[in-house]
Amino acid sequence: MEYRQLLEGVKSGTISVEEAERSLSSLGYEELGFAKLDTDRRKRSGFAEVVFCSGKEDKFLLKIFEELYQRNGEVLGTRASAGQYGLIREKFPNCQYDEISHILKIEKEGKELIGDVAVCTAGTADIPVAEEAAQTAEFFGSRVTRVYDVGVSGIHRLLAQTGAIRKANCVIAVAGMEGALASVIGGLISNPVIAVPTSVGYGANFGGLSALLTMINSCSNGVSVVNIDNGYGAGYIATQINRLAVGRD
Amino acid sequence: MEYRQLLEGVKSGTISVEEAERSLSSLGYEELGFAKLDTDRRKRSGFAEVVFCSGKEDKFLLKIFEELYQRNGEVLGTRASAGQYGLIREKFPNCQYDEISHILKIEKEGKELIGDVAVCTAGTADIPVAEEAAQTAEFFGSRVTRVYDVGVSGIHRLLAQTGAIRKANCVIAVAGMEGALASVIGGLISNPVIAVPTSVGYGANFGGLSALLTMINSCSNGVSVVNIDNGYGAGYIATQINRLAVGRD
Amino acid sequence: MEYRQLLEGVKSGTISVEEAERSLSSLGYEELGFAKLDTDRRKRSGFAEVVFCSGKEDKFLLKIFEELYQRNGEVLGTRASAGQYGLIREKFPNCQYDEISHILKIEKEGKELIGDVAVCTAGTADIPVAEEAAQTAEFFGSRVTRVYDVGVSGIHRLLAQTGAIRKANCVIAVAGMEGALASVIGGLISNPVIAVPTSVGYGANFGGLSALLTMINSCSNGVSVVNIDNGYGAGYIATQINRLAVGRD
Amino acid sequence: MEYRQLLEGVKSGTISVEEAERSLSSLGYEELGFAKLDTDRRKRSGFAEVVFCSGKEDKFLLKIFEELYQRNGEVLGTRASAGQYGLIREKFPNCQYDEISHILKIEKEGKELIGDVAVCTAGTADIPVAEEAAQTAEFFGSRVTRVYDVGVSGIHRLLAQTGAIRKANCVIAVAGMEGALASVIGGLISNPVIAVPTSVGYGANFGGLSALLTMINSCSNGVSVVNIDNGYGAGYIATQINRLAVGRD
Amino acid sequence: MEYRQLLEGVKSGTISVEEAERSLSSLGYEELGFAKLDTDRRKRSGFAEVVFCSGKEDKFLLKIFEELYQRNGEVLGTRASAGQYGLIREKFPNCQYDEISHILKIEKEGKELIGDVAVCTAGTADIPVAEEAAQTAEFFGSRVTRVYDVGVSGIHRLLAQTGAIRKANCVIAVAGMEGALASVIGGLISNPVIAVPTSVGYGANFGGLSALLTMINSCSNGVSVVNIDNGYGAGYIATQINRLAVGRD
Amino acid sequence: MEYRQLLEGVKSGTISVEEAERSLSSLGYEELGFAKLDTDRRKRSGFAEVVFCSGKEDKFLLKIFEELYQRNGEVLGTRASAGQYGLIREKFPNCQYDEISHILKIEKEGKELIGDVAVCTAGTADIPVAEEAAQTAEFFGSRVTRVYDVGVSGIHRLLAQTGAIRKANCVIAVAGMEGALASVIGGLISNPVIAVPTSVGYGANFGGLSALLTMINSCSNGVSVVNIDNGYGAGYIATQINRLAVGRD
Amino acid sequence: MEYRQLLEGVKSGTISVEEAERSLSSLGYEELGFAKLDTDRRKRSGFAEVVFCSGKEDKFLLKIFEELYQRNGEVLGTRASAGQYGLIREKFPNCQYDEISHILKIEKEGKELIGDVAVCTAGTADIPVAEEAAQTAEFFGSRVTRVYDVGVSGIHRLLAQTGAIRKANCVIAVAGMEGALASVIGGLISNPVIAVPTSVGYGANFGGLSALLTMINSCSNGVSVVNIDNGYGAGYIATQINRLAVGRD
Amino acid sequence: MEYRQLLEGVKSGTISVEEAERSLSSLGYEELGFAKLDTDRRKRSGFAEVVFCSGKEDKFLLKIFEELYQRNGEVLGTRASAGQYGLIREKFPNCQYDEISHILKIEKEGKELIGDVAVCTAGTADIPVAEEAAQTAEFFGSRVTRVYDVGVSGIHRLLAQTGAIRKANCVIAVAGMEGALASVIGGLISNPVIAVPTSVGYGANFGGLSALLTMINSCSNGVSVVNIDNGYGAGYIATQINRLAVGRD
Repeated sequence: MEYRQLLEGVKSGTISVEEAERSLSSLGYEELGFAKLDTDRRKRSGFAEVVFCSGKEDKFLLKIFEELYQRNGEVLGTRASAGQYGLIREKFPNCQYDEISHILKIEKEGKELIGDVAVCTAGTADIPVAEEAAQTAEFFGSRVTRVYDVGVSGIHRLLAQTGAIRKANCVIAVAGMEGALASVIGGLISNPVIAVPTSVGYGANFGGLSALLTMINSCSNGVSVVNIDNGYGAGYIATQINRLAVGRD
Repeated sequence: MEYRQLLEGVKSGTISVEEAERSLSSLGYEELGFAKLDTDRRKRSGFAEVVFCSGKEDKFLLKIFEELYQRNGEVLGTRASAGQYGLIREKFPNCQYDEISHILKIEKEGKELIGDVAVCTAGTADIPVAEEAAQTAEFFGSRVTRVYDVGVSGIHRLLAQTGAIRKANCVIAVAGMEGALASVIGGLISNPVIAVPTSVGYGANFGGLSALLTMINSCSNGVSVVNIDNGYGAGYIATQINRLAVGRD
Repeated sequence: MEYRQLLEGVKSGTISVEEAERSLSSLGYEELGFAKLDTDRRKRSGFAEVVFCSGKEDKFLLKIFEELYQRNGEVLGTRASAGQYGLIREKFPNCQYDEISHILKIEKEGKELIGDVAVCTAGTADIPVAEEAAQTAEFFGSRVTRVYDVGVSGIHRLLAQTGAIRKANCVIAVAGMEGALASVIGGLISNPVIAVPTSVGYGANFGGLSALLTMINSCSNGVSVVNIDNGYGAGYIATQINRLAVGRD
Repeated sequence: MEYRQLLEGVKSGTISVEEAERSLSSLGYEELGFAKLDTDRRKRSGFAEVVFCSGKEDKFLLKIFEELYQRNGEVLGTRASAGQYGLIREKFPNCQYDEISHILKIEKEGKELIGDVAVCTAGTADIPVAEEAAQTAEFFGSRVTRVYDVGVSGIHRLLAQTGAIRKANCVIAVAGMEGALASVIGGLISNPVIAVPTSVGYGANFGGLSALLTMINSCSNGVSVVNIDNGYGAGYIATQINRLAVGRD
Repeated sequence: MEYRQLLEGVKSGTISVEEAERSLSSLGYEELGFAKLDTDRRKRSGFAEVVFCSGKEDKFLLKIFEELYQRNGEVLGTRASAGQYGLIREKFPNCQYDEISHILKIEKEGKELIGDVAVCTAGTADIPVAEEAAQTAEFFGSRVTRVYDVGVSGIHRLLAQTGAIRKANCVIAVAGMEGALASVIGGLISNPVIAVPTSVGYGANFGGLSALLTMINSCSNGVSVVNIDNGYGAGYIATQINRLAVGRD
Repeated sequence: MEYRQLLEGVKSGTISVEEAERSLSSLGYEELGFAKLDTDRRKRSGFAEVVFCSGKEDKFLLKIFEELYQRNGEVLGTRASAGQYGLIREKFPNCQYDEISHILKIEKEGKELIGDVAVCTAGTADIPVAEEAAQTAEFFGSRVTRVYDVGVSGIHRLLAQTGAIRKANCVIAVAGMEGALASVIGGLISNPVIAVPTSVGYGANFGGLSALLTMINSCSNGVSVVNIDNGYGAGYIATQINRLAVGRD
Repeated sequence: MEYRQLLEGVKSGTISVEEAERSLSSLGYEELGFAKLDTDRRKRSGFAEVVFCSGKEDKFLLKIFEELYQRNGEVLGTRASAGQYGLIREKFPNCQYDEISHILKIEKEGKELIGDVAVCTAGTADIPVAEEAAQTAEFFGSRVTRVYDVGVSGIHRLLAQTGAIRKANCVIAVAGMEGALASVIGGLISNPVIAVPTSVGYGANFGGLSALLTMINSCSNGVSVVNIDNGYGAGYIATQINRLAVGRD
Repeated sequence: MEYRQLLEGVKSGTISVEEAERSLSSLGYEELGFAKLDTDRRKRSGFAEVVFCSGKEDKFLLKIFEELYQRNGEVLGTRASAGQYGLIREKFPNCQYDEISHILKIEKEGKELIGDVAVCTAGTADIPVAEEAAQTAEFFGSRVTRVYDVGVSGIHRLLAQTGAIRKANCVIAVAGMEGALASVIGGLISNPVIAVPTSVGYGANFGGLSALLTMINSCSNGVSVVNIDNGYGAGYIATQINRLAVGRD
């Protein structure tokens, strides 16, 4: 336990009172002026801090990429625009940008992928959110199986993939409109389902609220839900579960 | 066309101007003081007026039953309480009451049932609404196939009934919680699905709103929706379609 | 029943175990990589798959049109932009685009239209949604009667059309603002009404929610509801009913 | 103008500074300790203060009835319970209570009724709210025409009453469920319609919200709306308009 | 009564059966193909039909202006764009356009204005809606008193105008944000208040919903409400009341 | 700073490492098994912990009263039932219960009250919430001025109290229905207004939501809002401000 | 794969075509007439079917308990009333009922508990939901650590438990009111957090909606959400994750 | 009291009746034609009128700046665009514009700042709203401490700043997404917290509604809430409290 080590250091004189006080008060972040980078996060969570790029000003975004790259040797950015890709590429020519998922990243090479996370979508319009989930999971080291366009209006397409879905440690179910996919998958498998409602649809879908309510009210066991269009969050949780299943965290 | 007949009667003198004026102004209802019984309805719609019993005062309820029985020789009442059953039974010993559906009726004997309407539920808690639908359809002359407890958390139970569902002229899908049943059925069959959201569930189901939104946003073709818990309405529409299919209206 | 045929084929040796297994697992779709075309749909539903064009990327849209055209000899696309029309026209010069309904289609010639579906609107602003409904129904083979601008603020305009509305096998009622049209029509006729709320209006109409709630709460029998602005869905259901009434499905 | 009179009184010495200050600060209410009776209201509005009985404690209710009776010689109470009727009757044996509208009143005899206010309902379940409106209007001196059970599911019943509705100075339209009545009436007449949504209905009517939205979004001119179940408010406004039309205020 | 005249005409032979039937079926509108102009409206309501210009296509707008001008010698259009003004001006050089209210009209000269309608706003941002109300009332013949920027955050500004507000036959209270103005005015005067919520505000005003709820729940008597930003509707109703008060309708 | 003192104690040996670790980990609460009494709260906030009685089981409630009484010599309980009063009185005969506010307390005698907090209500039905606020403020040592029944439907009643309201350090404005009171008061005074929406009203007030939205959207400066019916919270904040104004905290 | 085995059985003649067809159509449920017990569930999911007792009729509840007990030797029932406990105890004297969680169960003895699931609550009022979660997890074989009453209004109580929370394989965070607990825990640990909003609170909590929205919008990674008050669902998912972490499923 | 002085002036003849009447009726605003500048505000509230620039027309904005500058020697404008800055700068070259907060002001030099207001944000995206709050407070004379990017997903960053937050007279907590920051701060300090929900977030945050509900339902004492993104309002209230604490108002 850190408290004890610190206190014993103080007692023995190897740590000064001032140092200890600073530790207790401000352990674990880097003051950037406009932001406090949570550098303690990797220790706490096993995941480095990720950058939500949307709306960030250029100079701040660049600074954050630099800071995180220096610390971790890689950076994951979500919801990046093509313009932001241009900006980061000038400084980091090896960065990669995916137009579907809007993920902008600098990634270490030769990363080993472990376990199995399945990412399913109801339709093709849900793929951008699904790719955000899949690529996040891959960045954090999960092997990913993609099962797209298996919505319940043609249930035989999903049933034909039951085998692939059942062997995953965690299944991410991405669906808009009425969002019924998560319930059907939940009824077919034994591992957890992370449901991601999307804003795909029109009329009374209210920007994804209909799918969110469907998933929260799911009659199937094993279904928990993240925010509308939050592929990143689902990829993160699926990796947490996948790591536990594989026995690494 | 009635206008023409009436006008020709006026022209030929077989109908007086006063009579014709009264016809034009007030054709088709019976003034009860507190209500205007829509006696023209059967002619317009092919269905006699039905009594929504819930909350009706005893003397008014009895009056309406008497009036309709006299006119049609049978009466269908929905959402009746056990107390109302007692009231009507005193006057009409042959009336029947079903505790599940809360339907109270006096029905002609030997009614021939035609065609095929399937009524499906997601769970057992949806059965009261489903029975209101089924018994309404039967009262109006439809043959009904019941397929209960086939919700999507165990999709194989539904798939095993595909044959029965496919041969119906119209399928009523009754479901609460997340309401995904209607979409799955819509994807399996060629005839129309009438979706009935129920208020079954808890938490964020908001009295059936979650199921209603699911069904309205259905990704499957052929699904239209009635009000929450409105089994009667679904039974009525299914009968309209069933009659069209059989060729009687 | 397919199961039995297949099993007997296996028993008699005309179908190998591998073939049968593949049939059971993946009957009825075409893997396009980014999508799984539901080629089994026509068999299940009597309607070929339709393309929701809005937001589809050019190369995917073209691929889907090609695939469906090859299979069915005709394609129906909804919510297409003028740009998408340009794209498809290059490859299919005989495709047709309607600026009001945004329907883009390649259609077989000499199609016989059967039965009668009436499409009514409350105002002129509801016509785009109504045309999506009407043209969908026509594409699928229904004869359509258009009765536009008969909203309840001038009820005599609707009453003058009662004859035309009554003889249809199914009536589609399209209305925004307060959406009262569906209830009034429901009270006038004996066949089913498919109500389509539109997002026409301003202020507290909340993108069509007010009309949706009006229609779902309709006091008239025989009214069921589809999603806001979902003309396509209404045209599809009306055709299902119309086919049943005419005796073809 | 009162300010000028008061100031001239001060100048001329007929009103003392203290008196004038008190007038300016506290003109027009009676301090009851637990309440401030707005005794100036009749002068400002032409209507005496009315008692909303629901939830009032017995001793307070009695005190308010006594105070208002002494001042005005009559009292109008709304939303009174049978128990409150018993309480008030002990002290005022000539008070009257109506079980339908829940109005409890002491009324001057021989009141002359003027003009014409029509009160319409869609169904019989809307009558309690309609009676609150009608009896309020009568208490304040309006002649009232009742037109009940003329909802749009049988539009001929309403059309047959067009004459009665057209000659009223103001029409109150009371409806629950989908609330379409107000729009249809608005389209038929030249005088203002006060729409009262009621909480009658079930499912997605959300305690009257569906009817409220319908009425607020009415496509007909001349329709304004009061709160759900607020018959009293509608009767008050209708009387304001009726008085203006007759030329008394 | 029209029915009687028509029937007597048929009886006496001055009207043929065919003519009479056509009259009964289609009295009172002009078929434009894309629309049914409600030419009977002026007779029913005392107000000619008004054009909601927003979103209308150019050729339809022009056609409607021509048709109505020919019939009535004047036309009132609401929610017109500057572009639509340009279009109409080419054909009708004497048309007038107001940039604040977005009213586009052709108006008869020398119109006499009667009675008194007061239009109040809470802030300056509410003026566009208020002007739509004021100019509508003026077009229909009402004299209008404008009392702007008297919101409740500085209640003394409103109180200073009490005299002007009290003498109006009807007061239109236009307010966004929290919409408290209508309640305060309702408490000060004896004539009806038409409350118009506006979409002015930000954050939790939800496009005017907060002001709408405030006004619908008003604790003051005599307040009824129209749709968010519906200045036209308020000007129409105020004129109905003003005409009744002056004794013309 | 506590950290420094603790660390210096560890360094000097006056505090053992174990003690210090315990301090760092668990300073400031009492483990009751079913609850963790926040005994550090008075030090952090200057206010002792208060008991929300509603729904607490008898044995737990009694235990908490005993624990807090022992520690502080007085206890404040909110939302207590008469039954809970009976329970506590057995053990603490000097406890006091107020039926209006539902406050149950054991209070030290001779408490000096400081400063000035004004509590205003729109109507008499808002008094229970107002008394919860007033009595909470008094328990915590504030002098309270009550100004009840001064809602905006009779604005002169409020204006007559302007003097009393202006001299308070903080004003609590309690109102249901449309909740306009807070805005009017905010416009009259220079000190902060704490607005408390109440669930008083009916129809579209949605359990206080209408008043909450009104207050959150207030056009007046200086208005901040607490939860619906949260008199306690308002009394607490007003006391915080009153203490700051008087110079004690 | 079952399909292959079945087909090879058919081919070799060890399975008749009829048997195989029955297998394909109806594998895995027991027809009870009123319900279809999903007996295949344990095989698919590793969890036996659980009984949601609330609202079930006595005879049906008993039948289901008998059926499941016979099949599995134990039964878990949630949301049971004391009356239902009485009913089941007559037949199964060894059943157990917990008044806090409303769990009614018959459980095998000597069950070994594995891994570690932490269940945290914000307040004491959240404990019933937390116990439903904890006891569900225990029934399914998870070891549970309870950390109750550590809400964010006294954050030191939570921080003092960081150690206990960090070592769990999955943390269930149960909170009503503003529901901030899940976000704070999510920021402290590396394993998944299952957030359970509760309906605890009043005013604008809207039956738990406020906590649900808080949790769905959590700024912390690793948080997914189940329905309001759905302790059972959280205990189920936590067990899925815990089993994966321990390496058993 | 002004009333008494005025009346005594009338009595003694030093004030004419006309003057006094004008005073009583129209004290305290300047009629600009399109607006009524509330010039009495500074006297009532201790704060001069502030300009909400967004959407104001150029000529009106300039006029208001001129009028207020002439009266007060300084002007504070909120929500100004860069274009409006250009406009005002032409006339007032010494005006200042901040691109983050969108505050446009002309400020007196050498303003002394008093007391201490802390402004905290959960993330960097909340800074624009926080700066509006901070700069408003500074304009009105408060000393401000900024504590940014201390959201609850890394609670140690906030705890490290506890000292700075505790010594402020009032803390403004600015947060979007789930808005938990206000509750945590409320639990740490003894002075009032003004919570500002922001529209930062996506999915089910509904434009800031989720954060608003979180804050209104806060389990911590001392938290009151202003409108979504209303930094100005929070800065104003914090200054009111800060002035009271310092002893100036």
